[in-house]
Amino acid sequence: MRVELIAVGTELLLGDITNTNGQYLSKKMAESGFALYYQTIVGDNEKRITEALRIAYSRADMVITTGGLGPTDDDITKEVCATFFNKSLVLDPYSLKKIEAMYQQRNVPMPDINKKQAYYIDESQILENHNGSAIGCYLQSEGKHLIILPGPPSEMIPMYENEVFPLISPLQEETFFSNYLNIFGIGESSVNDFIRDLLQKNNPTVAPYAKDHYVKLRITASGTSENIAQVEIDHIKKELYQRLGEHIFSEGDCSLEEVVQKKLTEHSYKIAIAESCTGGLLSAKLIRLPGISNTFKEGIIAYSNASKNRSLGIPETLLKKHGAVSKECAMLMAKNIALQNYADIGISTTGIAGPSSDHTEKPVGLVYVGYYINGKEDYQELRLSGSRDKIREMTVLTTLYTLLKKL
Amino acid sequence: MRVELIAVGTELLLGDITNTNGQYLSKKMAESGFALYYQTIVGDNEKRITEALRIAYSRADMVITTGGLGPTDDDITKEVCATFFNKSLVLDPYSLKKIEAMYQQRNVPMPDINKKQAYYIDESQILENHNGSAIGCYLQSEGKHLIILPGPPSEMIPMYENEVFPLISPLQEETFFSNYLNIFGIGESSVNDFIRDLLQKNNPTVAPYAKDHYVKLRITASGTSENIAQVEIDHIKKELYQRLGEHIFSEGDCSLEEVVQKKLTEHSYKIAIAESCTGGLLSAKLIRLPGISNTFKEGIIAYSNASKNRSLGIPETLLKKHGAVSKECAMLMAKNIALQNYADIGISTTGIAGPSSDHTEKPVGLVYVGYYINGKEDYQELRLSGSRDKIREMTVLTTLYTLLKKL
Repeated sequence: MRVELIAVGTELLLGDITNTNGQYLSKKMAESGFALYYQTIVGDNEKRITEALRIAYSRADMVITTGGLGPTDDDITKEVCATFFNKSLVLDPYSLKKIEAMYQQRNVPMPDINKKQAYYIDESQILENHNGSAIGCYLQSEGKHLIILPGPPSEMIPMYENEVFPLISPLQEETFFSNYLNIFGIGESSVNDFIRDLLQKNNPTVAPYAKDHYVKLRITASGTSENIAQVEIDHIKKELYQRLGEHIFSEGDCSLEEVVQKKLTEHSYKIAIAESCTGGLLSAKLIRLPGISNTFKEGIIAYSNASKNRSLGIPETLLKKHGAVSKECAMLMAKNIALQNYADIGISTTGIAGPSSDHTEKPVGLVYVGYYINGKEDYQELRLSGSRDKIREMTVLTTLYTLLKKL
Repeated sequence: MRVELIAVGTELLLGDITNTNGQYLSKKMAESGFALYYQTIVGDNEKRITEALRIAYSRADMVITTGGLGPTDDDITKEVCATFFNKSLVLDPYSLKKIEAMYQQRNVPMPDINKKQAYYIDESQILENHNGSAIGCYLQSEGKHLIILPGPPSEMIPMYENEVFPLISPLQEETFFSNYLNIFGIGESSVNDFIRDLLQKNNPTVAPYAKDHYVKLRITASGTSENIAQVEIDHIKKELYQRLGEHIFSEGDCSLEEVVQKKLTEHSYKIAIAESCTGGLLSAKLIRLPGISNTFKEGIIAYSNASKNRSLGIPETLLKKHGAVSKECAMLMAKNIALQNYADIGISTTGIAGPSSDHTEKPVGLVYVGYYINGKEDYQELRLSGSRDKIREMTVLTTLYTLLKKL
């Protein structure tokens, strides 16, 4: 069955709010196996809502609208939909009582205009609203399905889950299940090259998405039960691990810093961090996670040479000979921050985040990361591009990823 | 002029990402005075993108597409648009060189498929991408305008601002000009209470927006020239400063950390920061800004008591008597980090970011901030609520705001 979403609201067209309802319902449609090919946003305007309905029903069997169920004059979704289907609006006394009671509870008399929210489209099924005053409707007419939902996500989401989902899920035989693999260190186009044949497959389907600084692979299988679908997914996941294994750092929603924290905890490793160009970002990333206090010993943000010298014991001769942005400086920073803190692991970053260079011949984007892991010294030279923010963020993620590989 | 937005991407239809581009461009269209009545989301499918273009041009003079400019086979927006306008795609050697150089800098050969991103629609104007590899296009043909933009907001937004805005703003006679005031320390509803009468005005209009942790006030006036509009805006801005002055920390896009950096630079102040619960976030916020190396001396992330003792000289007796989360500890951390670095200003944070407490009776959300400014010691007690991330972020912003007031 083909579904289209129509979000109604001038505030959406003015950019005052984001249409998160669209994303939520898209996800739900995908999970339930409905085909969703178009979404439309339209303002609170009779002619244009009618036009959006006409176009949507020329392509789909079911339309879900969100928004435009408020009490004021510009909220007209229900009215326009009723006219579109040649139906009248009918007052539901039970819903009216509920709205009146809601106001009573707040010790406020119900404004007359709110009465409007207790009307439903004739012959439609009422969708109760336990989190607000506007009721929704589910209408089946002339082979078409229409679902009218309120705009605020706090009302729309429970109404979808409790009222709509049980009504429409029997309309689809097969549902879809997905697993996600998170990939770092190679770009979307390289991922494509590695798995081009798998991307052509139909069930399960494999699709890569470029996220901000990594790639997410989605594997989706359809089936009459989750178990059946998971067998298909596992089969292809094995293949993906064989081809991309070294780049897969986690599954699902698990972030890179979470995987690193987990590994550190597993080994009971203590870590200390000395940052120059990343200026605290690397430490902040790890400290985001609760429970990190057992692992994280200390961070020093040694942005100046004086601080590198005084707080990290980097000799002035080294700074003079190699510069602060050098593998020698990075390795000694990592070693010293570890030793000072009796930590198993010391990590350091030093580089040129831009926008301008440090008056040496070293280019913007040159970063050295120092690793001191259980007494073993190592370094990594990065050549990054982009804005100052991007260079700092990429340094942090690359460092976490490399650390993970070394653990 | 009527504009429509078409966001292209199957990942949008599957609910994998939110269409924040839609909100951003809607806002920009409203500001520039373009009429925007519909937005559409469509998948990476030739037939359906063509259909979306056909419908959009039946109602509007200009279409802006976002997404579908990636290197892989399913990225087809440019190709479909070219066919729609009966044009061919042409390779831009300059863009190709730029993409190759980007890969070279990373020491990776450019995959062949990326070449595709250097093609533009014949007779269109190239929109340069300084933050990614896909170029955009601006085509005028048969009285129709077409703007093709990449999907990642980090590429789309600068391309709109730097390339598209100067091209399309002359198309509107009466344009809208806006000024923004950034407000910290009071919520959106309190702002509403203070300026209720001003919110009713028509030209200029005043509208508050709740941002992540502050409130943005937009003042918009229409006029045939910016100067005329600015006179109206200035008039109402004066009134807003009278009512909300102490809470307005900046205008336009200037962030709190930028205002702080500016003040620090004005006074030639040197700053050093000792963080516990914010774990590097405060330092990272300041170090985001270029040129901060003249101001920022050192940061220490003293997450453990041992580190507070060793690196910041907090006596064990103090830690035992008052605990690490105390005004005494905060003030001494601030003083010592300043003195150790010969800095004019020392700032410290120590608190309980949650989700659980520190085994004392102190509640989650209790944070002490220490200030040591030109020899004067002070502290601030915060009682925050929300997630670990929110408590850390609010601590950082409140600290920056308070520091600004003290400077």
